[in-house]
Parts: sequence; C-alpha cells; structure tokens
Amino acid sequence: MNQVRLGIIGIGAQGGTYAGFISEGKVKNMVIGAICDIDPAKKEMCAEKYPDVPFYDNYIEMLESGNVDAVVTTVPHYLHPEMGIEALKRDVHVLLEKPAGVYTKQVKELNDFAATKPELTYGVFFNQRTNPLYQKLKEMIDNGEIGKIRRTNWIITTWWRPQGYYDQSAWRATWEGEGGGVLVNQAPHQIDLLQWICGMPKKVYSNVKYGFQRNIAVEDEVTAMLDYGNGATGVFITATHDVVGTDRLEIMGDNGKIIVDDSKKITIKRLVKPEPEMNKTMNMMDIMNLFMGGDTSDIYTEEVIEFESVWGAQHISVLENFAANILDGTPLIAPGSDGIHGVALANAIHLSSWLGKEVELPIDEELFLAELNKKIEEEKKNPIK
Amino acid sequence: MNQVRLGIIGIGAQGGTYAGFISEGKVKNMVIGAICDIDPAKKEMCAEKYPDVPFYDNYIEMLESGNVDAVVTTVPHYLHPEMGIEALKRDVHVLLEKPAGVYTKQVKELNDFAATKPELTYGVFFNQRTNPLYQKLKEMIDNGEIGKIRRTNWIITTWWRPQGYYDQSAWRATWEGEGGGVLVNQAPHQIDLLQWICGMPKKVYSNVKYGFQRNIAVEDEVTAMLDYGNGATGVFITATHDVVGTDRLEIMGDNGKIIVDDSKKITIKRLVKPEPEMNKTMNMMDIMNLFMGGDTSDIYTEEVIEFESVWGAQHISVLENFAANILDGTPLIAPGSDGIHGVALANAIHLSSWLGKEVELPIDEELFLAELNKKIEEEKKNPIK
Repeated sequence: MNQVRLGIIGIGAQGGTYAGFISEGKVKNMVIGAICDIDPAKKEMCAEKYPDVPFYDNYIEMLESGNVDAVVTTVPHYLHPEMGIEALKRDVHVLLEKPAGVYTKQVKELNDFAATKPELTYGVFFNQRTNPLYQKLKEMIDNGEIGKIRRTNWIITTWWRPQGYYDQSAWRATWEGEGGGVLVNQAPHQIDLLQWICGMPKKVYSNVKYGFQRNIAVEDEVTAMLDYGNGATGVFITATHDVVGTDRLEIMGDNGKIIVDDSKKITIKRLVKPEPEMNKTMNMMDIMNLFMGGDTSDIYTEEVIEFESVWGAQHISVLENFAANILDGTPLIAPGSDGIHGVALANAIHLSSWLGKEVELPIDEELFLAELNKKIEEEKKNPIK
Repeated sequence: MNQVRLGIIGIGAQGGTYAGFISEGKVKNMVIGAICDIDPAKKEMCAEKYPDVPFYDNYIEMLESGNVDAVVTTVPHYLHPEMGIEALKRDVHVLLEKPAGVYTKQVKELNDFAATKPELTYGVFFNQRTNPLYQKLKEMIDNGEIGKIRRTNWIITTWWRPQGYYDQSAWRATWEGEGGGVLVNQAPHQIDLLQWICGMPKKVYSNVKYGFQRNIAVEDEVTAMLDYGNGATGVFITATHDVVGTDRLEIMGDNGKIIVDDSKKITIKRLVKPEPEMNKTMNMMDIMNLFMGGDTSDIYTEEVIEFESVWGAQHISVLENFAANILDGTPLIAPGSDGIHGVALANAIHLSSWLGKEVELPIDEELFLAELNKKIEEEKKNPIK
C-alpha cells in the first residue's frame, strides 16, 4: 500500500472539509476511497462533486466494500465509538472525530476492542495537537522548563455561537443529540490539550450554566476547578456567548511561568533559580526593590515566541500523520486511546455540576450514564428548543 | 477644628509609614496627635523621632487624653473592631486598618455601634479605592458601559512572601495571631475592590491550600469560585508563592469586556451593540469572517487607558479623605461599614474549604467562629512554625 483510501462517514460540514482537502491533493498519501451519508441530498451533492467516488448510505456496507482502508467518523458524537468498533472488527483503520464519545463507558469499550487489534491504526482527530505552539508548549513542560506545575488556568471563551447556530438542526445542543454543549462540542480540543500538556486532575468541582445566554438545554458556560492531587490546582473556563472571547492559558511552576495568549504567543518567564530556593535565600525587600527598580533580570528572564497559524493546516497534518502511521509506522500524534481522557474530564465537569459537589476521577461511569439518561428523558418531556 | 490630630495605635511597619507621611507634612489638615504602642523599644524610637508627640502604652489612656481627635488602628487584625468601638465610645473618630476584622461577628458589633454614632467619622483603610484606575473602573461598571456583568475573573498573585517574612514574628501566619493567611493579610484590598466594583456573590466554593509552599498553618494559595445568583459567575485566585506574580482582572458583560492588567492598564472592548442583540441578528460565519479579515470594528471598539502609579499616594489620599470628612463632611471613599463585605467574602472562602462544600452568603457566623476556634486550638497543640 502506498496510499490510504479513506472512507468518510458523514459528509456534513466537517466531513466535507476533509473531502475537500483530500480531493484537492492537499493530503499526502491519502485519497477518498468512499463516502457514506444517510441523507439523500448528500448523495446527490456527492454524485456531482465526487462522481468517481463510491457512495453508500450504510456505513457497514462501505466498511465491507473493499473500497476503504480506513475511515473517519464525522458523525454525531454518540456514534463515534460504535462505528470505531465496527470498522476495527473489519480490519479497517479508524480516525475518530473528536470527542471520542459522549461518555467514558462507550469509549472504554472501543479502547478495549482496539487493544485487541494493535496492528490497526486507531487515531483521534485532535488537530490542535499538531499546532506548533502547543507542541512547543508540551515540549517545554515535559522538559521541566518551568519545573513542577503548581497552577494551571485556561480561559477559553472564543467559541461564540449565536442562537441561529443551535437552531440549525434539532439534534444540536440537546442531551439526546449531542450529550452536552460547549464541553462536548467546542471545548474538547482545549480539554485534551490541557490534560495532554499538564496531566489529568484527580478531582473536579464545577459551576456549569445550562442555557444561560442561549435557549438550549445544554451548557453554554463552564467554570471548573481542578485539583491535581499533589497540591497543584487549575481553573478551566469556557463559554459560547462571548463574542470577543478570551483565550489565555497560564501555567505556573516551581521554576517559572508560561502564558499563552490567543493560541498565538507564548511568553516564558524563567526564574534564575527555583522559587523554593528564592524562598529560602531572598527577602521581600530584595524582590520589591528589584521590581521597583525595573531591573528584574536577577529574578527571571523572559522569552516571547510568536506563531503564525494557517487555517486548515492542522487538519491536514492529522490526516497525513494518520496515513503515515498506516503506511510506515510513523508515531501517531493523537493515538485513539488518548481520546478517553478528555471525555473523562468533561464527564467529571458535568457530573460535579449535576451532583453539586466535588467528584473524584475516575468518576462512577454508571452514575454518569444514569444521570445523562435522566437529562435525556426530561428533555423528551420538556423540549427546550 | 481646622486640622485633625490623629492618634496612631501601633507604630509598626504600617503605622510608621503613616507617621512618616503626616510628620513630613504630606497629609493635608492632619497632624500626629499621639502615638501608642505596647513595645518599649517603640517608645524609645518615638522619643527620638517624634520628641514632641505624646506617647502612650495604653490606647484607652490615649483615647481619653484629649490629645487625639481620631485614631488609626495599625494593630493585629483581631483587635481592629474592639479598638474601633472603644474609640467611638469616647467620641473619637476611627480609621480602621484593613481588614475590618477577622470574622464578621466582631465587625458587625463595631458596625452596629458605629450606627449609633452617626456624627462620628468611621472609615476603613482601603487605599486601593483611591487608585484612579479602580475609580475609573468602578465608574464604568456603575455607568453600565459593559452592561450587566456575566463573569468576573481576577488572578492576583503578586503577593510574594518568602518564609523569612512569615518567620519575622511568632504571630504572623497563625490562626491565633492573624486568623488566616493571604485572604486576611494581603488580598483584602482586591477582595474589597472586587465586591465594591462587581457586587457581592451569593455563593462561594473554594479550594484553599494551607501551607502549600510555605511552612505556615494558614493559606498561601486560594482559588475561589463565585456565583452571583443571577447567572453571573466569578473566579478569584491569590497566592503568596508566585515570585513573578500575575495581576489580571477580566470583567465580561452583556455589552463588552474590560481587562485590567497589572493594576496599570485598562482595556475596554465595547460591543457595537449588546451581545443578546448580536446573538439574534448575526450568524457565526459573519463573525468569523470579520475576525479572520482583521476588521473587527463592526463587532467592537477597543480603548486602552494607562495609569501611572505613585507609591504612597493612595495612603495619603485615604488619610486626607478621612480628615476632610471630619472637617467638612466630604464623602468617605471607604466608609467603615463597607469593611464587613470583604471580611464576609474571605470568611466564606475559608468556610467553604473547611466544610468541603459550597457556602451561601451571608454565612453562618457562629459556625465560622467555632471552626476558626478549632483551628486555633489545633495550632496550640501542634504549632507549625
């Protein structure tokens, strides 16, 4: 095999974007093997746009057609795990759209099954992991450039969505259709990045606002407090009603601090010696005088790194990395089994708000699912939209 | 009366600073009437430095001497309320050092007593309220420039204190001596500003770290989640172990956002129309295109205001405003009765962490005091420092 024939399950906004990149030859070693969608209008559209690509309205048929080596699951979140399992069962490689699923129990089933098929490639579409800024950030944290983490803080409210967005389809922003709001649809990227770079917290407490500024059943604002179990803490804030959104990540460690602004600029403040040592050897007036005198070089040095972002480049990188793993074993940037962490964290944030108390990770999966099902039942009785 | 003779109770670091300002003639219409301290070494120091100023080692004697029209209470926090009451009883005006007290029950007693003496001036030393930046900020919020508040977020960790600071005196950073750490000693300014500008929350949940990076019994790091009861939320973070501290306040409202950096710069992003209206009339692509095209003037306008800070100016302003209120009725910038709000908020943050759950305001004062007394008893058995 020298190129991967990708089957696209679901040719909506996201699937359509990927089809565009691939058909325009932008994705190295990848071609469209087939497209699947249950919507007859999509069939017509594809017949015109991709006349040479086989089209299916049943994804199992596509998996068994011999036309695809791999699939990407650009379908509603609930369906990702079962489609992943069905593909792997048929020895078809899987690139799971994010989030890996709505609740960890279903994602675990997929992960367990995937573990029995180690020869197959199983990736998850965390395109932000290919962002050079976050790769650099992870490298710095992993290398201990700011030492042991004491505090993380991410305000990521650049996910503005007007009511019209939610009203596009009946399933959007419903418990039954999506299983959540900003935590499940928009913020999974940052939830993954936070845990990828800074690790998983041990405890979560949240204040989640459901339908705060939008007429929806699910959440449009989240404040979550994280406890890493070793003294370190964190705060994660996201929302879909901030039209001039904030994107500011601050990570403080024993040896300094990193601030990421707008996912474009990293500011690294490296202490000249670890803070625990300064604590022992310096007095408050020394430090105040240094700050007031304007010469802080005896305390820390500052480096600023700016990044250019190219729209679409990240998605193409994920597709190419996925193909490369299939073709020559290049390591995956986002192995499929990693997808469960973000789902676990999002589930913990939801569960804490439902129970009104701090929850420990891993959370009780059965309890989460029971509570989620209650929301779905309530919604059926009293639909919001 | 054309000038106020101030009695300084406690001539330590803070009292000494005020004495310096007044004796140098920097405080309009105020002179030092007398000084009181229980430390004999201070008596010697004052005899040399302020030979013409009467010195007392008993503050009641000073209050009754006829040498003072007013007092400032630069003594350990626990003592502020009782000294305030004793002064007012003797018709002496009171400028209470911050915080107004350690627990609301004691502050309430003072407030209740002060209410029976409306002819006397009763102020609290919130010098940050005289900072032109925060006055401007309050004015903008009060004028509704960014509409109804949706979210507040203050990271204020510029309070670095090394172990040597805590080890200076036995009473520092103990439950018995101070009744808390950063919440009681360093952060009361910001806690007051936050409630002064954005109002009091209705509920608080906190994660407070006691002796996290310092060898102390009390807290050196605080993360508090605020709920204003009307959908609006907030986060307040403070710490004493961040040598390159952050000071960033963000307030988001229906009509825009204000970001205050380093207590020096205000950035105001005013939406061209209220967000609820944009929500109804604009679609996501409109907004994305405006942002990607770089011309965001159809969404918001931005104004940046920079402020110069002059060390000491704020303290002088408070003293002058206090004197002016006594002499001609100029309104107080920080009326004494306002001091209880910050104490109530700090108490709620402590109590939430002690109980491990969200607490409602006003909190149960008796419960708080019982829990505080438990900490004091534990500390006596197992002193940390």
